[in-house]
Amino acid sequence: MATITVPQVVPSPVEDAEALMKAFQGWGTDEQAVIYILAHRDAAQRKLIRLAYEEKYNERLTDRLESELSGDLQTAMGYWVLDPAERQAVIANAATKCIDEEYPVIVEIACANSPAELLEVKRAYHAIYKRSLEENVAAGATGNLLQLLVALVSTYRYDGDEVDGGLARSEAKIIQADVKNGVTADHGELIRVLGSRSRAQLGATFNCFRDEHGTTVTKVLRSAMHKSGSDEESLLRVVVMHAEKDLRGIKDEFHKRASVALEQAIAKETSGDFKTFIMALVGTSQ
Amino acid sequence: MATITVPQVVPSPVEDAEALMKAFQGWGTDEQAVIYILAHRDAAQRKLIRLAYEEKYNERLTDRLESELSGDLQTAMGYWVLDPAERQAVIANAATKCIDEEYPVIVEIACANSPAELLEVKRAYHAIYKRSLEENVAAGATGNLLQLLVALVSTYRYDGDEVDGGLARSEAKIIQADVKNGVTADHGELIRVLGSRSRAQLGATFNCFRDEHGTTVTKVLRSAMHKSGSDEESLLRVVVMHAEKDLRGIKDEFHKRASVALEQAIAKETSGDFKTFIMALVGTSQ
Repeated sequence: MATITVPQVVPSPVEDAEALMKAFQGWGTDEQAVIYILAHRDAAQRKLIRLAYEEKYNERLTDRLESELSGDLQTAMGYWVLDPAERQAVIANAATKCIDEEYPVIVEIACANSPAELLEVKRAYHAIYKRSLEENVAAGATGNLLQLLVALVSTYRYDGDEVDGGLARSEAKIIQADVKNGVTADHGELIRVLGSRSRAQLGATFNCFRDEHGTTVTKVLRSAMHKSGSDEESLLRVVVMHAEKDLRGIKDEFHKRASVALEQAIAKETSGDFKTFIMALVGTSQ
Repeated sequence: MATITVPQVVPSPVEDAEALMKAFQGWGTDEQAVIYILAHRDAAQRKLIRLAYEEKYNERLTDRLESELSGDLQTAMGYWVLDPAERQAVIANAATKCIDEEYPVIVEIACANSPAELLEVKRAYHAIYKRSLEENVAAGATGNLLQLLVALVSTYRYDGDEVDGGLARSEAKIIQADVKNGVTADHGELIRVLGSRSRAQLGATFNCFRDEHGTTVTKVLRSAMHKSGSDEESLLRVVVMHAEKDLRGIKDEFHKRASVALEQAIAKETSGDFKTFIMALVGTSQ
C-alpha cells in the first residue's frame, strides 16, 4: 500500500503550477511550498502538473526544479516528479555509469518489477536516452557480473504460476554445484537459471534447495556479494520508488526486523528540507 | 510486399469453415480444396475462420488440419493458419529442441523482426508454452552459441535511427580484434556488440569495418559459421513467414542473385499438394 497522502480537495494542475512558480520566484526558493505541493500529489496528478507547468511557462518543470533545488532534495524531487517507469529509467541510467558499485540498483529494478513493468522501464529508457538499458549495462560491467546483470535486465520472463517440479529439483542441484565453485569461477549455469526462469519456477527451485541443504539460496549467495552504495542514496531510492506502491508493507517489515519504526530511523539520518520531503512521502507529517 | 492473392469476393468465415469441414469429410481429405481456401485468405481472415470453425464444430482447426494432412503440407499449413507471432513462436520452439543444428532459425526470428514484433513473438511464446523463449534457448545451447543466441532473443533493442559515430569506430575495432581470435575463443565482446546495439548503430559499425578492412563483417563471420537445416524446411519457413509481408522483395533479390525465378526453383524442388500450396503463397497459380 501507498504511504503518501493526497488532500481531499486538490487544486487544479494549473493552480498547482502557478503555486510552484510562486515558490521559485523572489529571494531563494520556497522549498517548503514545493514539498507541500508535490509530496502530496499522486503520479497522475504530478504528470498533469508537469504538463500544465510546461504549457504555461514554456519550460520543463524537471529542469526548473533541478536549478532551484540542491543536494539530496534535488535528487529526490527530481526522481519524484517523474512517472514510475521514467524514474526507474533515470535511476538505472545513473547506475550504469558506475556499475561495479551501483549494480544492486540494476538488480532491484530488474527483479522488483513484474516483466510488464520492466518492459515499461525499458521503453522509457529508449525514449529518454535513445539507447537500450541492455546495451548500457552490457557496456559497463565485466565478467560474471556482466552476464548476470545483462540476463536480469534483458529476459522477458514468463509471468505465470506454472511450475515444473523436476526442473526445480535438477536446477537446485545446479545452483548447489555452482555455488561450491567459489566467487571467481565461471557461473554460467547459475546465471542462466537466475536470469531466465520465471519467478514461480525460481521459487520452487529455491524451496528444493532449502529442503535439500537446510539453508536458503539467499544466505549462500549473500556471502558472495559485497554491499555497496551510500545509505542515504539507497534510502532515497527506496522511499521514492515505493511510496506510491508498497511502502506501507516495507515499513511493517522494517519495524519487525530492526525493532524501530522506519520513520524514526529516517528522522535520525536526515535533516532540513530533505527530511521534510522524505517524511511526507513516508506518510508522516511533521 | 505480400505475394498472396485474396479473391475480390470472400466467403464469410462461417462459409469457409463449412467448406473446410466438407473437405475433411468422406474418403480422404480434399487437400486441393483446403489449399484453395486457406492459401487465399490473409492473416485476419484466417483468424476469423479459426474462430468460426472452433465455435461451429467444437474442435480446433489447427488440430483437425494436423490430423487430416501429412508431410511438408501438414507442417506448412500448420504454420500458415497461425498468427505471425504465434507461428514464429511455434517455429522457434521447434528449433530450441535441436538448437545446435537449428540455431539459424532463432537468429532469423530474433533479427528479421523489429524489436516490437519480436516482443509479440515472445508474448505468444509465453501464452502457448507457459515458458519464455529466453529460458528454452538458454537451456538448449552451449558456449559462445548460447551467449549469442540468448542475447539476440533477449535484448529489447533501441529502434531509433540515432547513431554514435565514435562508438561505431571503436566497436568496429572490437569486432576485428575478436574475429582474429578464431572460432573457439571467447567472443564476449563481439556477442555484446551484436547482441545489444540497435540496428542503426550496428549498420554504422559494419560500415566502419568495411571502410577500415576492405571486406564486410558478413563475409568474415560467414566463414566461421556452418550451414544447417534441410533446404526444404528452410524454403517452407521463408515462404510461410514472408508471404504476407515482404516475399515480393525476396523474390526479386533471389532472381538477381540466382539468375532464376524463385517460382521456378521452388517448382523444381517440390511436388504434389505441397507444391500447389507453396506456389499459391508465392503468388503463382498453377
